[in-house]
Amino acid sequence: MALIVQKYGGTSVGNPERICNVARRILETQHAGNKVIAVVSAMSGVTNNLIDLANAVSKNPTEREMDVLLATGEQQTIALTAMAINSIGGKAVSLTGAQAGIQTDGVHTKARISDITPTEVHEMLEEGNIVILAGFQGQTRDGLITTLGRGGSDLTAIAMAAAVKADLCQIFTDVDGVYTCDPRVVKTAKKINVISYDEMLEMASSGSKVMQSRSVEFAKKFGVRFEVRNSMNTNPGTLVKEEEKGMESVVVRGVSIERNQAKVTIDDVPDRPGVAAIIFSAIRDANIIIDMIVQNVSWDGETDISFTCSAAELPKAEAELNKIIPTLGGNVKLRSQSGVAKLSIVGIGMRSHSGVAAKMFNALAENGINIQMISTSEIKTAVTVNENEIEKAAKVVHTAFGLDA
Amino acid sequence: MALIVQKYGGTSVGNPERICNVARRILETQHAGNKVIAVVSAMSGVTNNLIDLANAVSKNPTEREMDVLLATGEQQTIALTAMAINSIGGKAVSLTGAQAGIQTDGVHTKARISDITPTEVHEMLEEGNIVILAGFQGQTRDGLITTLGRGGSDLTAIAMAAAVKADLCQIFTDVDGVYTCDPRVVKTAKKINVISYDEMLEMASSGSKVMQSRSVEFAKKFGVRFEVRNSMNTNPGTLVKEEEKGMESVVVRGVSIERNQAKVTIDDVPDRPGVAAIIFSAIRDANIIIDMIVQNVSWDGETDISFTCSAAELPKAEAELNKIIPTLGGNVKLRSQSGVAKLSIVGIGMRSHSGVAAKMFNALAENGINIQMISTSEIKTAVTVNENEIEKAAKVVHTAFGLDA
Repeated sequence: MALIVQKYGGTSVGNPERICNVARRILETQHAGNKVIAVVSAMSGVTNNLIDLANAVSKNPTEREMDVLLATGEQQTIALTAMAINSIGGKAVSLTGAQAGIQTDGVHTKARISDITPTEVHEMLEEGNIVILAGFQGQTRDGLITTLGRGGSDLTAIAMAAAVKADLCQIFTDVDGVYTCDPRVVKTAKKINVISYDEMLEMASSGSKVMQSRSVEFAKKFGVRFEVRNSMNTNPGTLVKEEEKGMESVVVRGVSIERNQAKVTIDDVPDRPGVAAIIFSAIRDANIIIDMIVQNVSWDGETDISFTCSAAELPKAEAELNKIIPTLGGNVKLRSQSGVAKLSIVGIGMRSHSGVAAKMFNALAENGINIQMISTSEIKTAVTVNENEIEKAAKVVHTAFGLDA
Repeated sequence: MALIVQKYGGTSVGNPERICNVARRILETQHAGNKVIAVVSAMSGVTNNLIDLANAVSKNPTEREMDVLLATGEQQTIALTAMAINSIGGKAVSLTGAQAGIQTDGVHTKARISDITPTEVHEMLEEGNIVILAGFQGQTRDGLITTLGRGGSDLTAIAMAAAVKADLCQIFTDVDGVYTCDPRVVKTAKKINVISYDEMLEMASSGSKVMQSRSVEFAKKFGVRFEVRNSMNTNPGTLVKEEEKGMESVVVRGVSIERNQAKVTIDDVPDRPGVAAIIFSAIRDANIIIDMIVQNVSWDGETDISFTCSAAELPKAEAELNKIIPTLGGNVKLRSQSGVAKLSIVGIGMRSHSGVAAKMFNALAENGINIQMISTSEIKTAVTVNENEIEKAAKVVHTAFGLDA
C-alpha cells in the first residue's frame, strides 16, 4: 500500500462540479490500493474576492488579519471536497494547516514552514480516512494563522510529502506537465517526461510558471519526487526528481521565454570595490526583482553593468538609480530600454557538452535575430532579444536542439 | 474602566461599508474608556451561499465538514472588522472561537459550549487591543471545529461576557430593542426599557424572535445582564436582567403573536396512565416541535388532548399520530385545523395581580374574537384564535393592558 500526496489547484476545484470530479479522482486513487492525502487550494476567484473585501475596508490591511481572512478560502475547499467524497461512498476528513501540524514562522502573508508534526494526519490515515488538507496555510507556535504566499499550496503538498515520507507526490494542474517550450508559442513543443530539480528550477525562474521555484527548491532539499499532471485527464505527466545518470544525454531539456522585460545599463561605472554593491542595494531596498546581471571585463578603469527587470518596474528602478548615480563619481550614465524578452535554454547535459551556446547563437544569427545580452549558469544559457522577435527566436532555438515533436 | 462585550449580527456587518460603521462604533466604545470584546457574525448571505455550495457537492453533507465550512463565514468577518478598526487608528486583533478558548461538545452543527478558557482574550485586552471574536463557533477538546447552531453568535457573546465577567453585554441588531408587540402589527407598540429574563424567554418562545431562547436561558443561568440595541442608531435599547422589585408593577410587559400555527386534537382518549406519553413520544421521534399542550379534566373516563404546531409540520404530525391511534383503543379520533395563530400576554406582574386572564378574554369577547384554546404559565397567558383575526386581537389586547404609546 503506497502513500500518495496529491495537490489540486484553484482551477481544478473551481466550482462544485469540478470539486465532485476531484473527489472521484481522489477516491479512485484510494480504491487502487493507496493511502491518500489531498492538498487543495481555494476555489479559483475566492482569494481575489477576499482581497477585494480587505481593500474595501482598509487601505493597508493588517497582515495578521489578511492571513486570518485568506485562510478561509482553503478551509472552504477542504470541507466541500471531504463532503463530496463522503457523498459518493468514500470516507474523508478535512484538516486545516493548523490541525495538520504545519508550523510556520510568524512572517504573515509569506510565512515559511518551520516544522511539520503530522500526528493527526497519521491517525486519520490509520483509521482508513482520506485526508483532505488545506494548502497555503499553517500556524505559528503561538497559534496564529499564517499563509505561505504565492505557490503555497504546492509547498504544502511537497512539505507534507516529505514529512510523511510519501511514496509519490502528484501536483495536479490545468496542463499536462512541463513542456519543452510554451505550446502557445512553439506548436511543436513536447511534454517532458522526466526533468531534474535543477532543470525545473531554471525553467521556473525563466518564466515557465507551472510551479513556483520555492516549492521545487524545497522538494530538492528534502528529495521529494513529484509529478506534475493534468487534473482534467489521465495523461501521464512530468516527473521531477533528483539528477540521475542518463539524464545528461539530453543536452537541452527545454526552452523558456519571459516577456515584458526591460534592460538597464549603467555605463562608465568606476571600476572599484563596492560600486556594484551600492547599485544593487538601492534596487533591493526598493523591492525590485531583477534578473540577468551582466558586468563585462574592465580594461580602462571603467565598466558597464547591466541587468534586466520587468518592464512594469522600470520607472521605479530608474528613479532609484538616479538617486545614487551622482554619488558614484565619474561620468556614470544610465541607459534603459523596455520591449525586451528573455530566451533561455536549460539542461543539465550542458555541463558535459561543449558548443551548446554557440549552437544557440548560430540559430539566432542565421535567422537575423540580434542578441542584446548574454548570461549563463552551469545548466542554462540566457539571452535577451527584442520582444517582437521572441516567438521566432523560441521556434528556431527549439528546432536547433531537436526538441520538436 | 469597564469591560464591554458587544455583538453585531450578519445584517450589521453585511457589506464593507457596514463593517466600517461597526468598526467606528467599536472604536468609539474603547475611546469612551472601555475594554471591548466584539463578537461578529458572518456577513449576511455568506452562510446561505456556503450551504448552497455544500448542497451542490453532496445530498447529505457531512456535519463535521459543514462546521469546517460554515466557520469560515465568521472567520472572514473577524479579519475584516479588525482590519477596518486598524485602518482608522485603532488596535484590534481577531480571534476564532478556538483561539478564544471556546470549547464545545462534539455535536456538530448544533454544539453546546462546555467551557471557556479566555486566556488569550485577557492577554490581548491587557495589551490594549480590541478583541474581535468569531461568533457561532468553537472547538472540541480534540481540536475539531464546531458551530453552535441558530442564534449561536448571541450565545458566544453572552457566554464570553460570563467568562470574562464583563460589566455589560450589548447585542446589536437591526431593531431598537424588544417591543410591547410587533410594531408592524400594532403601530402603537412601545420599546420596552427593562425586561426580566423570564419575560424575555416567554416573549421569544411566543414568536418575538429578537433572540433565540437558548441565549436568554444561558444569560439567566449565569446572571449576564445584556442590552438589545440597534447597530444603525444610538437609541437606548432594552435591558434584559434578573427580576427586581418594582418590575412587577407592570402587569403585562408585552403581547406576542405567532402565526402559521395548526391545532391538533385527539378526541375521546382513554383516560389511563401512559397515553399522553405514547402520543408525545411519537411526535418527538418525528422531530416535530409542538407548543401549548392542553388536556382538560376527565369526568367520564375519556379525555381530549390538544396541542399546536407549525402549520408546515401538520401533515407530518398527522401521519405520525395516525400510526399510533389504533393502538390506543376506544373511539379515538384525530381532528386538526391550520389557519390558527397564537396570542400571548407576558409579564411577571401577573403572579401578583388577579384578573389578568379575565381582562384579556373580555377584550377579545367585546371585539367578537373567539378563543379556541387557552394555556397559561405563571407569567404568560396564551390563546389561539383564527389566523385572520390575530392582528385585531393583538391590537385590542395591547390597548386593554395600557401598552399603547
